[in-house]
Amino acid sequence: MSKLISTRTRVADLGKPRIVVIGGGFGGLEFIKATKGINAQVVLFDKYNHHTFQPLLYQVATSGLETGSIIFPFRKKFSDRKDFYFRMGEVQKIVPEENSIETNIGTIKYDYLVIATGASTNYYGNDKIADKAYPLKTIEDAIALRNRIIKDFEYALLTEDNELMNTLIDFVIVGGGPTGVELAGALAELKKHVFPNDYKELELQEMDIHLVEGTDRLLNGMSEEAGEKALAFLKELGVHVHFNTFVNGYENDEVDLGEGRKIKTKNLIWAAGVTGNPVKGINENAILKNQRIKVDAYNRVEGYENIFAVGDVAAMITEDLPKGHPMVAPPAMQQGENLARNIKAMMENKPLSPFKYKDQGTMATIGRNKAVVDLLLTRKPWKTQGTFAWLIWMFVHLMSLVGFRNRILVFINWLYSYVSYDKSNRLIIGKNESLEPEKI
Amino acid sequence: MSKLISTRTRVADLGKPRIVVIGGGFGGLEFIKATKGINAQVVLFDKYNHHTFQPLLYQVATSGLETGSIIFPFRKKFSDRKDFYFRMGEVQKIVPEENSIETNIGTIKYDYLVIATGASTNYYGNDKIADKAYPLKTIEDAIALRNRIIKDFEYALLTEDNELMNTLIDFVIVGGGPTGVELAGALAELKKHVFPNDYKELELQEMDIHLVEGTDRLLNGMSEEAGEKALAFLKELGVHVHFNTFVNGYENDEVDLGEGRKIKTKNLIWAAGVTGNPVKGINENAILKNQRIKVDAYNRVEGYENIFAVGDVAAMITEDLPKGHPMVAPPAMQQGENLARNIKAMMENKPLSPFKYKDQGTMATIGRNKAVVDLLLTRKPWKTQGTFAWLIWMFVHLMSLVGFRNRILVFINWLYSYVSYDKSNRLIIGKNESLEPEKI
Repeated sequence: MSKLISTRTRVADLGKPRIVVIGGGFGGLEFIKATKGINAQVVLFDKYNHHTFQPLLYQVATSGLETGSIIFPFRKKFSDRKDFYFRMGEVQKIVPEENSIETNIGTIKYDYLVIATGASTNYYGNDKIADKAYPLKTIEDAIALRNRIIKDFEYALLTEDNELMNTLIDFVIVGGGPTGVELAGALAELKKHVFPNDYKELELQEMDIHLVEGTDRLLNGMSEEAGEKALAFLKELGVHVHFNTFVNGYENDEVDLGEGRKIKTKNLIWAAGVTGNPVKGINENAILKNQRIKVDAYNRVEGYENIFAVGDVAAMITEDLPKGHPMVAPPAMQQGENLARNIKAMMENKPLSPFKYKDQGTMATIGRNKAVVDLLLTRKPWKTQGTFAWLIWMFVHLMSLVGFRNRILVFINWLYSYVSYDKSNRLIIGKNESLEPEKI
Repeated sequence: MSKLISTRTRVADLGKPRIVVIGGGFGGLEFIKATKGINAQVVLFDKYNHHTFQPLLYQVATSGLETGSIIFPFRKKFSDRKDFYFRMGEVQKIVPEENSIETNIGTIKYDYLVIATGASTNYYGNDKIADKAYPLKTIEDAIALRNRIIKDFEYALLTEDNELMNTLIDFVIVGGGPTGVELAGALAELKKHVFPNDYKELELQEMDIHLVEGTDRLLNGMSEEAGEKALAFLKELGVHVHFNTFVNGYENDEVDLGEGRKIKTKNLIWAAGVTGNPVKGINENAILKNQRIKVDAYNRVEGYENIFAVGDVAAMITEDLPKGHPMVAPPAMQQGENLARNIKAMMENKPLSPFKYKDQGTMATIGRNKAVVDLLLTRKPWKTQGTFAWLIWMFVHLMSLVGFRNRILVFINWLYSYVSYDKSNRLIIGKNESLEPEKI
């Protein structure tokens, strides 16, 4: 046993099999929750000490919510579990032949390994874009984008050069999936309700918000009605949507959309795709081109007996799903839960249950009273858009948040924003020697 | 007129006299509030885009409150004022002979200048301490200390070296004023109610909290009863209080308290004093040894007609107050308000009113149901300690917070903590390659 864990471990846990989980996102968290009562030592590794509720990151970036209300400390989450151990550290690689993982804080052996490392922003190999665009996958991304947006406006006030002013207050968002759509809507609401009071000296009709999508519709994972209504909502809010358009390059503050189309902006936000975060040391054959790890119906990684993967990083390929499950929270959570049950069954030599995804639907919000919902609770999909959809969206997101206090805080923030048309968290954290844009 | 402000200024404001305020702390904010209706252009410079409610920074540092609930954007505060201009920038120096100030974003002329730059941590010239100790004056200080405390505990879990573990989980707080006392109390509550659940593997009785004070009592600005009761409360919570003790040095994780007394810790928190933040360019004769600026009874800086200073940075020396007013919020706020009235009077050639401080009392909280309050609302001071004092402290602080939403959020956080004995914001923000202590 490694020192890393045996130090200060409860004597009662020392002889038990050890399950190591890498990553405390939706999949990892749900897995650990479902191991309650298991006769094992459960160890979570994460480079953060908290879970991040990624679906609401865009609200942190647009000053709607505080950071603290969408993140939740792991230790608090499992404070009632005596068999749970958290270690804050980054996993460097796994060594399957030794059943061990190497991390920046030491090496540790496992009996069962669960890889739940999620996904990260996919720039499709364009390093120049990767270097200058703003992603939105982590809490630091959200804070950096928030700082950037507010600094842009402070700086725009100071220049008499209209072109520079426009590159500061214009936005290009790439990707018409939920993140892109929600972010475009939130920026449009800032333009409409918040910035006119804050920046009386700026001509805000010059603030342009562009949404760039490679296909011919928005929200590809949802129904056509949802995509069309989302488009109508965005147009109502003044967002310019560009279909069948790809970003070819981004240099000198200029986004190249091909065919001679260029948009000047200092704010290119990249929500155009994600790629799996596999860990090093896994058999290369098990890693697909999109960096997801091939797993069987039991979430077992191809070629291993005791290594599993769940969530965005796992690709469970079937006839129905040639690309695996969608990279969103629900399949991750359901896989986590099913895997916990299966590991219990393995330990008791009972039969395993293959994973079956229960798709309950999808939703996205564009703004105040504007959301689209496709529900699959009944046999026939049930679709709705507008105010009622927005209420459903809020309810589902509030209930999905980790922690009662977070729910209350987010609810109050939303209520306050609804009544006041305000987004209060427009704060720049960090002293800034210069307002001039540079990547933070 | 400088470009910095004339650009995008309302035409209606261009011919008006300009009042420039440096710093949006308690004094600056109150000054601006009280200029409502004045026939002038009011320009605020601050290096932050938000006011910080400093009295509650210690709660952010100890995971009790979120950053966003104690800071408030200036633009929002004065969004209803058409004559108000905010510029985010750092003032480099003032040029009184030209009635102008130089900043990192440009130069600007003023007709009236109000210096409200506050105070910063005073290390009394000890650079080695300044370099390694944690101050608590800004929101970044609070976040850095919070990250540090939690990282210490994560790191302490990983070591089998008991001495190292103790240097990680022991704390030395220097200064027995309100900040030191409140911080010691909050750490003691973390030890008692929160960390035992989070760090089941650590022996928390080894977490020592030391409070070091140079005089023979706590809370020197308050009554003797308050100081004694605060000491009793801290002892009840297990804090070690060292009177008549000074920190001589801090090297190799060892705090030197003189006479051979040494305490090993990686966490030296400095709340032992503040020093004024004068701006460059002010006549040196007007700057006292403690870096405060000498002002007359009208807050006018010695030697100038149209330069004023309020709050911590201003020293209004009288027979009763040979050192000026205490460096706390109430005199700053009252001076700001009085000065706004006087500047209005000057513009209308009316007689000025000298400043008179209405001391309404002082208070400090040590923990749950533990606070000390000296009120001066009646002729005879009214003193109380314990639960009722704690309720008064909470009520006064809630009412003093800027912004309705902040009050609600802080209230809910407090209510939640009261019911659950929990402090929820124990989050490390920022990816950390290493847990090993270094100054962030």
